[in-house]
Amino acid sequence: MRGRTDLAVEMREDIQREEPVSGVHVMTKNNGDTDIKEVRIVVENEEGAMCLGKPVGTYITLESEHLRQFDEGFHKPMMEVLAKNLKQFIGNKKKIMVAGLGNREVTPDALGPYVIDNLYVTRHLLAEGIISQSVEVSAIAPGVMAQTGMETVMILKALAREIKPELIIVIDALAARNSDRLNKTIQLADTGITPGSGVGNHRNAINQESVGVPVLAIGVPTVISVPTIVNDAMDVMVHAIGKQGAKNVLKKFSDEERYQLACEMVTPYLENMFVTPKDIDEAVKRISYTISEAINQAALA
Amino acid sequence: MRGRTDLAVEMREDIQREEPVSGVHVMTKNNGDTDIKEVRIVVENEEGAMCLGKPVGTYITLESEHLRQFDEGFHKPMMEVLAKNLKQFIGNKKKIMVAGLGNREVTPDALGPYVIDNLYVTRHLLAEGIISQSVEVSAIAPGVMAQTGMETVMILKALAREIKPELIIVIDALAARNSDRLNKTIQLADTGITPGSGVGNHRNAINQESVGVPVLAIGVPTVISVPTIVNDAMDVMVHAIGKQGAKNVLKKFSDEERYQLACEMVTPYLENMFVTPKDIDEAVKRISYTISEAINQAALA
Amino acid sequence: MRGRTDLAVEMREDIQREEPVSGVHVMTKNNGDTDIKEVRIVVENEEGAMCLGKPVGTYITLESEHLRQFDEGFHKPMMEVLAKNLKQFIGNKKKIMVAGLGNREVTPDALGPYVIDNLYVTRHLLAEGIISQSVEVSAIAPGVMAQTGMETVMILKALAREIKPELIIVIDALAARNSDRLNKTIQLADTGITPGSGVGNHRNAINQESVGVPVLAIGVPTVISVPTIVNDAMDVMVHAIGKQGAKNVLKKFSDEERYQLACEMVTPYLENMFVTPKDIDEAVKRISYTISEAINQAALA
Amino acid sequence: MRGRTDLAVEMREDIQREEPVSGVHVMTKNNGDTDIKEVRIVVENEEGAMCLGKPVGTYITLESEHLRQFDEGFHKPMMEVLAKNLKQFIGNKKKIMVAGLGNREVTPDALGPYVIDNLYVTRHLLAEGIISQSVEVSAIAPGVMAQTGMETVMILKALAREIKPELIIVIDALAARNSDRLNKTIQLADTGITPGSGVGNHRNAINQESVGVPVLAIGVPTVISVPTIVNDAMDVMVHAIGKQGAKNVLKKFSDEERYQLACEMVTPYLENMFVTPKDIDEAVKRISYTISEAINQAALA
Repeated sequence: MRGRTDLAVEMREDIQREEPVSGVHVMTKNNGDTDIKEVRIVVENEEGAMCLGKPVGTYITLESEHLRQFDEGFHKPMMEVLAKNLKQFIGNKKKIMVAGLGNREVTPDALGPYVIDNLYVTRHLLAEGIISQSVEVSAIAPGVMAQTGMETVMILKALAREIKPELIIVIDALAARNSDRLNKTIQLADTGITPGSGVGNHRNAINQESVGVPVLAIGVPTVISVPTIVNDAMDVMVHAIGKQGAKNVLKKFSDEERYQLACEMVTPYLENMFVTPKDIDEAVKRISYTISEAINQAALA
Repeated sequence: MRGRTDLAVEMREDIQREEPVSGVHVMTKNNGDTDIKEVRIVVENEEGAMCLGKPVGTYITLESEHLRQFDEGFHKPMMEVLAKNLKQFIGNKKKIMVAGLGNREVTPDALGPYVIDNLYVTRHLLAEGIISQSVEVSAIAPGVMAQTGMETVMILKALAREIKPELIIVIDALAARNSDRLNKTIQLADTGITPGSGVGNHRNAINQESVGVPVLAIGVPTVISVPTIVNDAMDVMVHAIGKQGAKNVLKKFSDEERYQLACEMVTPYLENMFVTPKDIDEAVKRISYTISEAINQAALA
Repeated sequence: MRGRTDLAVEMREDIQREEPVSGVHVMTKNNGDTDIKEVRIVVENEEGAMCLGKPVGTYITLESEHLRQFDEGFHKPMMEVLAKNLKQFIGNKKKIMVAGLGNREVTPDALGPYVIDNLYVTRHLLAEGIISQSVEVSAIAPGVMAQTGMETVMILKALAREIKPELIIVIDALAARNSDRLNKTIQLADTGITPGSGVGNHRNAINQESVGVPVLAIGVPTVISVPTIVNDAMDVMVHAIGKQGAKNVLKKFSDEERYQLACEMVTPYLENMFVTPKDIDEAVKRISYTISEAINQAALA
Repeated sequence: MRGRTDLAVEMREDIQREEPVSGVHVMTKNNGDTDIKEVRIVVENEEGAMCLGKPVGTYITLESEHLRQFDEGFHKPMMEVLAKNLKQFIGNKKKIMVAGLGNREVTPDALGPYVIDNLYVTRHLLAEGIISQSVEVSAIAPGVMAQTGMETVMILKALAREIKPELIIVIDALAARNSDRLNKTIQLADTGITPGSGVGNHRNAINQESVGVPVLAIGVPTVISVPTIVNDAMDVMVHAIGKQGAKNVLKKFSDEERYQLACEMVTPYLENMFVTPKDIDEAVKRISYTISEAINQAALA
């Protein structure tokens, strides 16, 4: 553990060997003539889960340099690759509930609510016979615990009991360890949301077990945690100091000890902070739009 | 019925006689040296409910010219009178859920969500032992059916089953008939929300029967419906035309027929419109703030 | 004058004769296989200006039923027709300032500010040599007089003096007379903005004369004024009353007298109100996006 | 220089001696029975300016633990102390322009625009004779260069030439070095805004020289820069490593070298990031409200 991350690809990087890890299957592919790199990590059993630090399930990462730029084409290639992947998860399910997690008022955490804003919701239209499209979509942006006083998992469980969706898609802002992945990576996980290090800091897992319905999570890393940055800076620092002695001491620390050290280096107040790019507003608007369109397209077909 | 209204005081005005109405009890009082007029209408039985067109229960209207003006004192008198009234409804209940109904993106309908933004939510703080204040407050701004695909009553029922509040306070923007009441009237009703004519147009009642918990509604008229305006304009128009004949014809219409006429006068598209003041953004921000503070104060004590 | 309007096409309808009006030239065309109807009204001289009630200049109205619906294609046909028309106005000008007028906090008046939010601004990027695109775009959403205390024309004049654009494009929400035109019409006018009846109510003209630079206005009707509605309802009402006498009296009124009557019918407070559709938030977001993209495309080529 | 800061109090701390600095006068006082600590730093001459790294002028810092908490009293003590200080700067000036700098869409940078939202603007009301209050207030939230393509100083200069205010008050989010000062410190500076390290990163100074009118800056630190954090973590880190050698090497670095080192430790992308608390939305709303009210009160009297 070299700093907190919500990304399976980064957790895979931690396993410092090139040879295959038992129970963890990794496939990489490119998408036609786009610049979108797709990494599919399948955690096949508990051994793999222990090793990777992520529950058994499938994690797909879509990464594109493109996603970070201004684009009058609305990031159509990414949208289409995402829609195609979503369709595989949706299969022949006919009732979907989409939950946009996060705090609308905190820019890097507003991704989920913004996706809901642009979603084509159909549940009431189908009920009234206004449309006869096949997939029923309902949606909620419940807010965060500081706004509601309620755990998000509790809200979703309560709604799922009433609406009885066959699939819940949750959208959430994530924390990455590598700043280079911010705002250009989309992760799909059929394991739902695990208590993480994002802005929102969900304390309880949101998954089939806790909600009673399969949960597909769409996540985009928009922040880095402060200890992560300090941790990353360590090697450079020690190198700059240039003392072999310092290097050796640092080598004696386990990854966990190093992260603890990084945490101690920052005051308790700093642990409650996050790091985010200055152009975060543009990034969140753009990516939320791409995700909305992908869900709309996946639900239409 | 001379145009749709959500205000009990306006429905009372429709009963065109000065003598008491059986089953409907009306009390008016002033609040100390403030300009706040308080009208309390108690519908005591089904006979009164039939006559007034509102369910059995208590309706309190607070009205103040003041509420419409810029005020560096944050409308403290209104806030305190509202808090005092809220406390009477809360009594010794210890668990309250507050629901801000309406669409955050439509200015006159954003009242409910804005109240939630400024609320002091305590449920999670009490659970974690961070505070030990006596009243537990949770909150939700669920959005409208066009955003969620779900009836609001269904969302609240689902959450109430999980959270088990002793009282639900719903805040909603209302429609008034008289433009002079817009943004200066606050209505409290222990009967919850009846399917009305506000911007939000709830189709199903939100009350103890439908949600399973007592529901106290706080409403502020922020819009008028289009047929209401046309209807109101009729008398003036006929008078302007000045033909006794026209007046007589109009007199033959029942109130209901007149309202039907007004509806016919406007195209179907117009029925889906609302009328609101140009300074509605200031008004909604100001009043939502006053209501938040009143709830905060009522829950603290 | 049968109710206030900012649309040249509606003012043209007022001239109740089929034969050509001297000095006013009207051309109508369809756009390929789209449903976009294009009406081009050229006011050629003062005689035409007097007759139409609009300054000498060119007014293009693009109208599409499509614009009012949910559309995963982002209203691409409308965007392209608008971009094509914008390019004709831009010609070989190299410096454009875009001004999004209106109040961001009042939904139907937020069109202008929302357009600015999605605009691709290039002035600083060109200055720093980051890009070498040919057209320089700067942008401002100045807010309304109630927020700034300053007339919008004064702000634009001050900025134009500093930035020296060759063209100012102003975007503003307009008032229509016919509710059927709301949110599906885009008007282009090379005469700028005339003091109108929109939500914003600019008191002073924004045009080449007042700002010192050619002004192209892009306007979308998002509201109707209350007197307009009452006025429109009159014929239906009189017909419903069915008295020949009433009809005759109404016939004696001139259009101006009728409008005065409609104004009198509504209280002074009502004159400061506007009428807007309940789905105005969706409409404004959608159309502002279409306009941003059209400007982006017109400026790129 | 131990990490970038916009706060004079933090720059004063850098001067590592207890004895007085020539040309820099520091006074500290408490405010009655409040918890508000007031530090007044007067840079009296160029020698002091060189030493402190801030232009000649007066810097007042108001600091209160209170400002960071939920408070149903709207932080009235802070508001009043701020209003009192503002009045001293305003003196008998009768025309004030308030500029809320920053990006409304990026939470920690939205402080300035939010202050404008709650301001009582009077310029147009005075012009129309609606009120006869003595101080004229106009306001603008111009947006940031990425939104406008224009330097903020250019916009303010253009408006000042037109409006001719006697004083411009600019409100801006700042960067602090010490996370413990975030969201509980308000700085007043009669030297305007110097190109800084806040979210907004103004490249050009906004002061009397550049705008032509005296500029009073109100700033609140809402972010820390990433290099600052790494820099601060260094001592702790070296101590943790526990090697005397490492410590000694670090001691050889000048402050400037240390900061350079910290910058090198973070990637170029990271330099374009900021660190902010997770509860930043609440903090910014709360403090912007306090500042608006203070300006409103200072302008009324």
